[in-house]
Amino acid sequence: MNQIIKTISVLLIFSVLVGAAYAQFAKPEDAIKYRKAVMTIIVQHFGRMGAMVKGKIHYNQEAFANNAAVIEKVSVLPWEAFLTPGSDKGKTTMKSSVLKNSADFTALAQTFEMEVGKLFAAAKKGDFDAAKAQFGAVAGSCKACHSKTRK
Amino acid sequence: MNQIIKTISVLLIFSVLVGAAYAQFAKPEDAIKYRKAVMTIIVQHFGRMGAMVKGKIHYNQEAFANNAAVIEKVSVLPWEAFLTPGSDKGKTTMKSSVLKNSADFTALAQTFEMEVGKLFAAAKKGDFDAAKAQFGAVAGSCKACHSKTRK
Repeated sequence: MNQIIKTISVLLIFSVLVGAAYAQFAKPEDAIKYRKAVMTIIVQHFGRMGAMVKGKIHYNQEAFANNAAVIEKVSVLPWEAFLTPGSDKGKTTMKSSVLKNSADFTALAQTFEMEVGKLFAAAKKGDFDAAKAQFGAVAGSCKACHSKTRK
Repeated sequence: MNQIIKTISVLLIFSVLVGAAYAQFAKPEDAIKYRKAVMTIIVQHFGRMGAMVKGKIHYNQEAFANNAAVIEKVSVLPWEAFLTPGSDKGKTTMKSSVLKNSADFTALAQTFEMEVGKLFAAAKKGDFDAAKAQFGAVAGSCKACHSKTRK
């Protein structure tokens, strides 16, 4: 358990550093398009996992873990795009408060990354009951952020 | 060099298997949206690398390698979405020939993945001259596919 927390901590620090290296959107519209793109990928793979969690399609451990792996890979990508100045205007539902209180947003993003990390760990182990519970925790972290940051 | 080829071969086989496990788009529109999303991410990070290759911004090895890492991660994702039945109709520039000759498309996609793998390897090593040459090879594999598959 301690090892998992250590690993997650290292990943979080890494993701923040990686994020900083990526903060290079030429225009706010590019940042908006980019973060929507990452969310499209997350939603697609989370939806596939959800279909298994809800019993709509048969549980397949490998497919479930592969979907979790994709989400884990891309979950570090979108945050800098949300924090790009001016990206609260235009084709977006993002509240201006995200830019004003970036620390609050970053905390929500980090919670999501942490919950996704735990989901990937459970999915890899093939513990479907644990993964189902953790799927709910990830969904909760999505909602927690959306409810505070969407217009 | 042999080790690199072996590694790339394993990655290619893995990516095909992973792709197969993901072939689950509910609607052709979902597949179109998904593949555009992956391309948005690739274009963004390739553009950042291109700015360094062209000397528009200062070369930073870590940032260059991080951008290559993102492209390498997501380069396995979009292919099944291009091969989704019916996804040649609607908001897409994809020719119907992609679905009719899927083997040709898959070969083009695999060339791209292979070139991206080499770019990531050169970027990680910090060999900017090799990376610049390989950046051109990746761009060539983009064009080779686009010229054959776009309406």
